[in-house]
Amino acid sequence: MSTLTGNAVIGQSGGPTNVINQSLVGVIESFKTNPNITKLLGSKHGVRGIVSSDYIDLSAVPTDLLERVAATPSSALGSTRDKPDAEYCQKILRGFTQNNVRYFFYIGGNDSADTARIVQEMAASSGYELTVIHIPKTIDNDLRVHDHTPGFGSAAKFVAQATMGDDYDNKSLPGIKVNIIMGRNAGFLTAASALARKYENDGPHLIYMPEAPVSQDQFLANVDAVYSKLGRCVIAVSEGITSPGGTTYAELMSQGLEKDAHGNIQLSGSGALGDYLAGQITTKLGKERGKKLRVRADTFGYLQRSFAGIVSDVDAKEAREVGKKAVEYTLDPANHEGSVVMTRVPGSAYQIKIHLEPLVNVARHTKHLPAEFIKNGNDITQAFLDYARPLVGPLPAVGSFVELKK
Amino acid sequence: MSTLTGNAVIGQSGGPTNVINQSLVGVIESFKTNPNITKLLGSKHGVRGIVSSDYIDLSAVPTDLLERVAATPSSALGSTRDKPDAEYCQKILRGFTQNNVRYFFYIGGNDSADTARIVQEMAASSGYELTVIHIPKTIDNDLRVHDHTPGFGSAAKFVAQATMGDDYDNKSLPGIKVNIIMGRNAGFLTAASALARKYENDGPHLIYMPEAPVSQDQFLANVDAVYSKLGRCVIAVSEGITSPGGTTYAELMSQGLEKDAHGNIQLSGSGALGDYLAGQITTKLGKERGKKLRVRADTFGYLQRSFAGIVSDVDAKEAREVGKKAVEYTLDPANHEGSVVMTRVPGSAYQIKIHLEPLVNVARHTKHLPAEFIKNGNDITQAFLDYARPLVGPLPAVGSFVELKK
Repeated sequence: MSTLTGNAVIGQSGGPTNVINQSLVGVIESFKTNPNITKLLGSKHGVRGIVSSDYIDLSAVPTDLLERVAATPSSALGSTRDKPDAEYCQKILRGFTQNNVRYFFYIGGNDSADTARIVQEMAASSGYELTVIHIPKTIDNDLRVHDHTPGFGSAAKFVAQATMGDDYDNKSLPGIKVNIIMGRNAGFLTAASALARKYENDGPHLIYMPEAPVSQDQFLANVDAVYSKLGRCVIAVSEGITSPGGTTYAELMSQGLEKDAHGNIQLSGSGALGDYLAGQITTKLGKERGKKLRVRADTFGYLQRSFAGIVSDVDAKEAREVGKKAVEYTLDPANHEGSVVMTRVPGSAYQIKIHLEPLVNVARHTKHLPAEFIKNGNDITQAFLDYARPLVGPLPAVGSFVELKK
Repeated sequence: MSTLTGNAVIGQSGGPTNVINQSLVGVIESFKTNPNITKLLGSKHGVRGIVSSDYIDLSAVPTDLLERVAATPSSALGSTRDKPDAEYCQKILRGFTQNNVRYFFYIGGNDSADTARIVQEMAASSGYELTVIHIPKTIDNDLRVHDHTPGFGSAAKFVAQATMGDDYDNKSLPGIKVNIIMGRNAGFLTAASALARKYENDGPHLIYMPEAPVSQDQFLANVDAVYSKLGRCVIAVSEGITSPGGTTYAELMSQGLEKDAHGNIQLSGSGALGDYLAGQITTKLGKERGKKLRVRADTFGYLQRSFAGIVSDVDAKEAREVGKKAVEYTLDPANHEGSVVMTRVPGSAYQIKIHLEPLVNVARHTKHLPAEFIKNGNDITQAFLDYARPLVGPLPAVGSFVELKK
């Protein structure tokens, strides 16, 4: 830790989650255990608030408000999509120097871990004592070393319950249904659509993840086969669905889509991919064969990450815990930087342990859905269910008259 | 009631809801109180099951299964979009005659009430004793005479919580957000987007309901005004948003959209309207003025009516109750037909009473959002909040650091 008395800054970055404020509150309620921290400053909109000294003093938040903030979706301090370059990082460091900031807690994904790493290196090389702790969050669940990340369990619960209800809707009014699920590069969230399957022939019947490329012809052939057998088909499609050549469907579909500051194509906040796939099915499996199909598409969109009221209890608890641990790690003078990582203790009962991992091992690169979680390129395995169920917790108990025949 | 011993048929029709099975279970658990009913037959996919004698015997469903079915989204018996003409209604009556059906419980909206009415009139004129009870359901809340309909409270809860979370998301990463909400002709569900507003400047900042037509120029001017003031704007738009001439935006946007069996344009199951409005905003408020705006659209889609786990307790309880009442009304020989109607008892505490209303007063036509619920053509009034809150029940308790400044 920094041996100097000074202030701490906490910021939130990237796409919000339903439990990102739990981690924030974990830090707020425990920062006083570090006697070297004078004030805890919340930077508004992540690194933007640091370069403009736009802070909220979080040193004395009433407990009642704190608990309500913890239970509120999305980033209470505001977020940012800025990905700082070297010059921007210098400004961050200058901001820290001006405000005598000696501790930086940054809640975010792999880009945020990388920003944290760069700022810490700059501080170290200029002789400025600064301890930087990355607190993980991402609904995509794509951080290396981490067994899973806070935010995933709650988003997965939303996707599982949405798909469960939608599958019952589709049983009621049969047809072909395409559901577009977040996760540009990693298929964990799309895979979670299968968590609520209970009866034979429950949907989703097909699951397409970025890690299992599929040609459009194969995609249509799969849909045709399920529809021919069941008279209906519910399809979970990652927004990052990719053809075998490595080109995403979004790229195939359009060259003109908006790109964000990271050079990524805008996939969320638009129904384009879902409508495109529904159109392909309507035309190629329907009109060209003289059949009228009922084809619908929903894009789950921002509801996946910020729906008020759908939270995994385990996820909320763990998100709080990693925030507390982040403060705890600053008490050891040996720790100058790191990411708070949860790993799973081997054994039948779900249990995690937490450690501090060097940022370089977490930053920048993406973790993908491992091959043993993917089945036939369009489904998930029991191993994925075993992995994800403890993170999501219990799902609604449903019933169907198919049980009467038993 | 029919004075003859015979069977009863129950069916579910139209778009499913999250509590439509509560009404089904209300009938199943109470039909034996009518000694004239021999068996209760569930017709699969509404009137389709009747004309093809495709029934499930519901006379002996285990209680445990019954309770799970009640808590399961969407129509457990399957639904249909068929709108029977006279010939189809004759087939229904023939089906009833063949199976000695003397009671028909039909769960649905105004189209289903009309089908029920026609079949009962045909039976009466041919001297076949048949009692027909319409059990209301529709998330659109658009049945005449009814104060509100089962299904609305739960869908409204979903829309309120989705909008609440989305508004926090938009505070975190500011921009312009368009949310498309179900309700082709009635704005009740879109209005419900406002139920979770708590702090000053909470969204939705603009609410467009079919009952308050708006020109595209006015729509854009409204968005511009909010965005100029707050730097962000969350907009709730009914899928039935209409221009002052009476043409829907969907019609303006495209003449080629799919139509259903009722001649309605397909609005749900596509992101087209949201993407169109986002495109208009991006172009006319952004590009044409040389500004880059962050504009996103989500179409809440089928999740609104079938999301597993978001149910209003009051809605679930009332849906069960109208099912039970439907059976109770068959005990009075004077009742040959009717719709089970909830009205509100005047007074400060929320209380309903239930009566049987002649089908002709409920069938076919749509109830609209009354003028006293609409404010300035793009918002809702306190009167709407007072009307809707008891139907939805408590919403998540959230907190924001803006309270620190108080």
